[in-house]
Amino acid sequence: MTRPHIRTIHHHHFGWDNALAPQAHALPGDTLEFDIQDASGGQLSQTSSAADLAAFDFSRTNPVSGPIFVEGAEPGDALSVEVLDFQESSWGWTGIIPGFGLLSSDFPDAWLHLSRYDRASVQFTPEITLPTRPFTGTIGLALAEPGPHSVVPPRRVGGNLDIRDLTRGAKLYLPVEVPGALFSVGDTHACQGDGEVCGTAVETAMKVQLRFGLLKGANFSAPRFELPASALPPADAQGFYATTGVGPDLYAAAQDAVKAMIDHLGRDYALDPPLAYALCSVAVDLKISEIVDAPNWVVSAYLPRGIWR
Amino acid sequence: MTRPHIRTIHHHHFGWDNALAPQAHALPGDTLEFDIQDASGGQLSQTSSAADLAAFDFSRTNPVSGPIFVEGAEPGDALSVEVLDFQESSWGWTGIIPGFGLLSSDFPDAWLHLSRYDRASVQFTPEITLPTRPFTGTIGLALAEPGPHSVVPPRRVGGNLDIRDLTRGAKLYLPVEVPGALFSVGDTHACQGDGEVCGTAVETAMKVQLRFGLLKGANFSAPRFELPASALPPADAQGFYATTGVGPDLYAAAQDAVKAMIDHLGRDYALDPPLAYALCSVAVDLKISEIVDAPNWVVSAYLPRGIWR
Repeated sequence: MTRPHIRTIHHHHFGWDNALAPQAHALPGDTLEFDIQDASGGQLSQTSSAADLAAFDFSRTNPVSGPIFVEGAEPGDALSVEVLDFQESSWGWTGIIPGFGLLSSDFPDAWLHLSRYDRASVQFTPEITLPTRPFTGTIGLALAEPGPHSVVPPRRVGGNLDIRDLTRGAKLYLPVEVPGALFSVGDTHACQGDGEVCGTAVETAMKVQLRFGLLKGANFSAPRFELPASALPPADAQGFYATTGVGPDLYAAAQDAVKAMIDHLGRDYALDPPLAYALCSVAVDLKISEIVDAPNWVVSAYLPRGIWR
Repeated sequence: MTRPHIRTIHHHHFGWDNALAPQAHALPGDTLEFDIQDASGGQLSQTSSAADLAAFDFSRTNPVSGPIFVEGAEPGDALSVEVLDFQESSWGWTGIIPGFGLLSSDFPDAWLHLSRYDRASVQFTPEITLPTRPFTGTIGLALAEPGPHSVVPPRRVGGNLDIRDLTRGAKLYLPVEVPGALFSVGDTHACQGDGEVCGTAVETAMKVQLRFGLLKGANFSAPRFELPASALPPADAQGFYATTGVGPDLYAAAQDAVKAMIDHLGRDYALDPPLAYALCSVAVDLKISEIVDAPNWVVSAYLPRGIWR
């Protein structure tokens, strides 16, 4: 690394537990580097196939680096985390995992897709180029409730938030529940759409540099974040094709919007359904257009036009 | 008007009913102008107060202009509607209506706020300037099912979609259920955030010009739309402050995200709760950040930084 004064955290753990021993202590203002494994925990490589995904050992997935004890952090504070920079690797994977994802009943089979990428772009297929927008899908703190907690669901202390806009320049605030906050981070993504609908993004190992701060007595109910002017994805500047789901249940409406987008990608671009579903996960954004005109709400799925060669 | 060859539709009706007599016939390729009343149906004026909102005659709200019989439109087709232009008026209203809206139990009292606007911007308060992004909140077709249907909920044929990005240059596709499609439009908004959380936008009368087309045999399950490169709101270019809701129910998570944003607007900008709630409705976007990490989903509320003076 070019900045030898920044400590690098290599240790990984699985799940959240406030009894885990801190791997480092940090003061507000400190920057740490995290050496993050991909969400498979190294079980997939550039020669892997869908069979390797089907044989996953789930106890080894989504490793997170940490925990970090932040001096002075107390329950009721918010830990601020500034996202400074990433050192990307060169390839990533996107998978459909049986039983997981927004349309899991429509996609029962394991499916794996590999992409090459660099700091500027992800070559998802020869025809589809996505802007590289690195972020950490899982970023959070230990819960006050003792014992082990699955890493899969996000919670009010953060965790597997999968907020795609937490890229360079973003500042995240996490509600602290235990002394020292006990921060961990993992699940680096080269890019993702809002919703991460197939359950995976472009999953990839990276190093990330984060700077910590404290907001004393913030008493936030859930994570919050600030995004700088540069936060908008460049592909969005070329317009969108959008589908909708309309109905009384937001989850079902989101499913309907994604199904309609898969239909569109098949008709107009001849993408087969698993590839279209995966493209939705890495590039399509889910928005709540309307949530007040009872009994029906509208979820829209936005496909940016800028991704096509 | 500068284009006397375009017919203007002045007739309004309330609710959807495929037995309503067409006010005009159009061919694919035709452009029509619609003279649209505000969502109060003229019950509010620039001297109105919350008491006028509380005394609303709801049978006269959300009038729509039409219906238009489009020659050649058959069930299974999609009617395309290109949004060409708007002639804005000069003022609009944003109201909190008892019993209506995402946080209706937190905001039981009628509340009314008036804004001046022009083609460029909405002066929401002396400190808050929103980009004018006109669109028609209600845009849709008659249902196959006979009889009257409330104008409030959107359906697969469109209606009260409140999709904020259907501004100049957008192209909407609506599934046709009856011969002639029977298109109507209303509920013009000077601007709105995704979700329209307090239940109203900057509600205002406008004229709008729309061009019709047909996609034969499209068999779309719900509305779709295309957005041109100019579709992005300029205020978004200055970054965001975002709150989240994390939990197993998207509706409750959206409520939590908006409650946290109201808290933020109170703490950092001293906005009182009804004004903050209304600002969320006209300027804050609800996004589904994650919908696969069971049992908890993430809804984010994005406040653009560019709105502050």
